[in-house]
Amino acid sequence: MGAKATVRSVGRPPKEVPQGEATRKRIHQVAVRLFAERGYHGTGVAEIGRAAGVRQGALYYHIGSKEELLFEVLKRHVAESLRGESAIADGDRPPAEKLRLLITHHVATIADRRDDVVIYLREQDKLTGERADELQRLREEVESVWWRVLREGMAAGVFRPVERVEVNGLLGLANSVFYWYRPSGPLEPEEIAERFFALAAHGITI
Amino acid sequence: MGAKATVRSVGRPPKEVPQGEATRKRIHQVAVRLFAERGYHGTGVAEIGRAAGVRQGALYYHIGSKEELLFEVLKRHVAESLRGESAIADGDRPPAEKLRLLITHHVATIADRRDDVVIYLREQDKLTGERADELQRLREEVESVWWRVLREGMAAGVFRPVERVEVNGLLGLANSVFYWYRPSGPLEPEEIAERFFALAAHGITI
Repeated sequence: MGAKATVRSVGRPPKEVPQGEATRKRIHQVAVRLFAERGYHGTGVAEIGRAAGVRQGALYYHIGSKEELLFEVLKRHVAESLRGESAIADGDRPPAEKLRLLITHHVATIADRRDDVVIYLREQDKLTGERADELQRLREEVESVWWRVLREGMAAGVFRPVERVEVNGLLGLANSVFYWYRPSGPLEPEEIAERFFALAAHGITI
Repeated sequence: MGAKATVRSVGRPPKEVPQGEATRKRIHQVAVRLFAERGYHGTGVAEIGRAAGVRQGALYYHIGSKEELLFEVLKRHVAESLRGESAIADGDRPPAEKLRLLITHHVATIADRRDDVVIYLREQDKLTGERADELQRLREEVESVWWRVLREGMAAGVFRPVERVEVNGLLGLANSVFYWYRPSGPLEPEEIAERFFALAAHGITI
């Protein structure tokens, strides 16, 4: 990033590119808010342009299409989750501790980035063709990270034999936070994650 | 129901009421399909009327408003879940067996009534005022049914001490099926439920 910035500042006036990036970022922020508030189908491109202060022609230059914009928003969200959770799986802690960290990371992401998750959970099926496929690949990569940790635990003899469906269940447990977590509620995200890890690790029976 | 029909058939020609009910049912079915396909905001009342073959004026007579229609659709879905799950909780099986049945019922509902659940999970926050409150009450009743079973298990000394947040987690585990279950997939709903019950009851660690 530093090297790239230097090359740019030597090559030609850097103003246009950063301005374009700032505009794109603003459009993304506005789109996330509107998609979360009014849904993908309920949000018009013109409305996004108005709220971001970008004229229609320039808007399409920046976003390509409304579906492309949804794709970019969702891709960034899933890619960031994937980065954080891959780092946990790649670490050298015991498998159960990795599972605890995965649940904690997932719950914290949902608590912190509510609008992104609203869109992710509600609008991902609006993507079609290549874009749907790429998001699906990213989603499967996240599942693979969790599956890798479960297999590590099975290989180490600390987890009982499970299958991919249990990954879906564990992600569902963590994702449920989206539907009922409120910052004003009695439990902090870390406390919720601790309780969910206990449930995932030991179950409810004595 | 039988007695009521008799009173009606004695009192006056019953034709109008059943016809009204049939129309209302048709409107509901169309609304469920369109809300699930295109989202609540993406579906116009006029479109529902056209698809159901009901003129605009008559349509409002039957539905009240688009929000009222969404409310009726969601209320019916949650009330039916509640009925099934209350019956399980009221039964005389051991607590762990009740939990198994609750998970099985929940997973089967999601697998069987996909459109209802799409709307329930995606559109419930579109309700406002009284309607939002009443749906919230029904949802809390479902949670209370699960919580009752967990408390029964704790009182019997077969479940470890948990709180309401674990109810949310267990429902999240079961609800996750919505996001990945496909009738063409390798596992039947009952098999998924068995695996999820094992996870909920015993956890993943050995």
